[in-house]
Amino acid sequence: MQNFVFVNPVKIIFGRNTLAKLGPEAAGAGKKALLVYGGGSIKKNGVYEAVTAALKKAGVAVAEHPGVKPNPVLSHVRAGVEKARAEGCDLVVAAGGGSVIDEAKAIAAGALYRGDVWDFFCGKAQIKGALPLFTALTLPATGSEMNSGCVITNEEKAQKYSTHSQHLFPRASVLDPETTFTLPREQAANGAVDAIAHLIESYFTTADRDVEVTDELVHGLARSVIAATGRILRDPKDYDARASMMWSATLALNGLGGCGYGGTSFPNHAIEHSLSAIYDIAHGAGLAIVMPAWFKRHLASAGPARLEKFGRAVFGVKTAEEAIKSFEAFFRQAGAPVRLAEAGIPAADIPRIADNAMGLIRMWGMKMEKAEVEEILRLAA
Amino acid sequence: MQNFVFVNPVKIIFGRNTLAKLGPEAAGAGKKALLVYGGGSIKKNGVYEAVTAALKKAGVAVAEHPGVKPNPVLSHVRAGVEKARAEGCDLVVAAGGGSVIDEAKAIAAGALYRGDVWDFFCGKAQIKGALPLFTALTLPATGSEMNSGCVITNEEKAQKYSTHSQHLFPRASVLDPETTFTLPREQAANGAVDAIAHLIESYFTTADRDVEVTDELVHGLARSVIAATGRILRDPKDYDARASMMWSATLALNGLGGCGYGGTSFPNHAIEHSLSAIYDIAHGAGLAIVMPAWFKRHLASAGPARLEKFGRAVFGVKTAEEAIKSFEAFFRQAGAPVRLAEAGIPAADIPRIADNAMGLIRMWGMKMEKAEVEEILRLAA
Repeated sequence: MQNFVFVNPVKIIFGRNTLAKLGPEAAGAGKKALLVYGGGSIKKNGVYEAVTAALKKAGVAVAEHPGVKPNPVLSHVRAGVEKARAEGCDLVVAAGGGSVIDEAKAIAAGALYRGDVWDFFCGKAQIKGALPLFTALTLPATGSEMNSGCVITNEEKAQKYSTHSQHLFPRASVLDPETTFTLPREQAANGAVDAIAHLIESYFTTADRDVEVTDELVHGLARSVIAATGRILRDPKDYDARASMMWSATLALNGLGGCGYGGTSFPNHAIEHSLSAIYDIAHGAGLAIVMPAWFKRHLASAGPARLEKFGRAVFGVKTAEEAIKSFEAFFRQAGAPVRLAEAGIPAADIPRIADNAMGLIRMWGMKMEKAEVEEILRLAA
Repeated sequence: MQNFVFVNPVKIIFGRNTLAKLGPEAAGAGKKALLVYGGGSIKKNGVYEAVTAALKKAGVAVAEHPGVKPNPVLSHVRAGVEKARAEGCDLVVAAGGGSVIDEAKAIAAGALYRGDVWDFFCGKAQIKGALPLFTALTLPATGSEMNSGCVITNEEKAQKYSTHSQHLFPRASVLDPETTFTLPREQAANGAVDAIAHLIESYFTTADRDVEVTDELVHGLARSVIAATGRILRDPKDYDARASMMWSATLALNGLGGCGYGGTSFPNHAIEHSLSAIYDIAHGAGLAIVMPAWFKRHLASAGPARLEKFGRAVFGVKTAEEAIKSFEAFFRQAGAPVRLAEAGIPAADIPRIADNAMGLIRMWGMKMEKAEVEEILRLAA
């Protein structure tokens, strides 16, 4: 077991009819919120009304920044930073999924920074502060509601890059599973794939193989995501399954899943970010394509032991090959594509995708050559 | 799944040679520490030297409050409060196990309170603030290093009572598994029993039976504690087993293990506290005596479903009866007593113990009659 530091100060308010609690939380931090949200699904499912009513009741004024895209883009972040400044906002409220929360984090940091917010993503500057952030989560997937990272796409450069800072932890996040009852099946599936991806990255990439307690947490959360997905596919209004999925996805990337492994590496994410950056496909869909291929490469280079352990504990299968097939079967069952062609991405683009991925791989300081990325992409073709 | 709020801001610094990191953490919070510790084992295992050197190097002055007992007593807490005031301490550092940390918490709160510190435990007053607290943990068991509760024994009244407050969360806790290499076998065993006790209380006492994600965490942590105990008994210097135990015991009572169950009730702890309060036996030993008896009563009143689920997941057995036997076998293997007589407690004392327990049961607002407590104690005879 390797040394680690764990700290996560986010207050989680979880359950039915909890959106009203955002009001008092936000009022403790400021007087005017920039309310960040996406394409308007929160206006259909009641979240917009509940959040604005809660803020109003607590005496918090609101300026709105709607229109966040899946794979949130830099130009829209910059517009949000300008709006937060022009409106004199002293806090940020995100209502939506991981994309909305990630953009809200970037805006919260950008609003207190004199330079261009992209500086935080390309490594030019460190985040020294951010406006207080509160979130109402509507899509279990990224874990952004309980971590300190965010991912933004620079659409001019086709770069999907990330940044981290203790200042980006939300002060409080409200998780009401009922807000996910109306999620399109595809989005629910992509969220489940994303949560699994977060669980497997450090589990499979780090050298330390004797971290029993964290292995147990990873196995348990993976089983919980898979069980909840099956129930949600059968009945989208199964509250306990939605709740289990929401809390599992949050715990899958709040820092606990990496404790003791000795650093976390994100090869699947690095490759997937290139797919999203170039083709604007959903993050979860891209991950479902990359992971089975990455596992095949991992099996060839690292041997079967780790895949066998995960496969036994999570899927109840014996061999590494069966474990990889089980991952694929789960992604397919959830409704995600598992090959490049299924997402309309031509194999001829592989060198270009690998070129793009190398930017991020170098940024993240990972030891991975372009030839290896291309090999993985060919296995995904 | 029931609504819940989860927040835990404690910074955990985990691993080999991490005690030196206490210095800069403490220096950020104050200039003079009250160093709270126990009977002197930290002087034998190097922890005292490492902690005082770290504080000195960081420019933090130290006043000492040694002599904390297992089942820390009120008179010693009061003396600590006076010492903290007389010495002008502006922070508290605990170096030891859960008893030391609990006493340090009580002193940290008492130092900022004009009345008697026992007011916090008997329900007379709420904690409104506390000196910043830092801990160096040397005995995995209570989880106090990452939670906001503490337990103190009023030796005049033979009352072992607890209090909770957000102000009691340590700012940072340093967990170096190597400091546990020299733990007496008995203490290691009692710690393992305590961790298991924390995992089972809410798992078995709450009504909500569809909280798959938390069930998975509880099962996983229980398996991890049991596996680590076996390895430690074979080789006390098995670093990875010591580390897995230390992190498991911390996670077993940091709030995660109860999320979604809808409130946690502590019947085993309520009864055990009376055993400790009257006979001054180790908390873990008392729990090993109470739990099998409580499970038998639980099986009779609540049915086998929950015990079967836990037994299948953790012990690999099928029936509720086998699950109870597996708990007992684990406690015995660890070296703990599992009957009152094995701890020298006469069955004739049962009414007196039950009387004492009822004080705490009423304090904690639990629905439990004296006849039920007596029945459990008879099952433990």
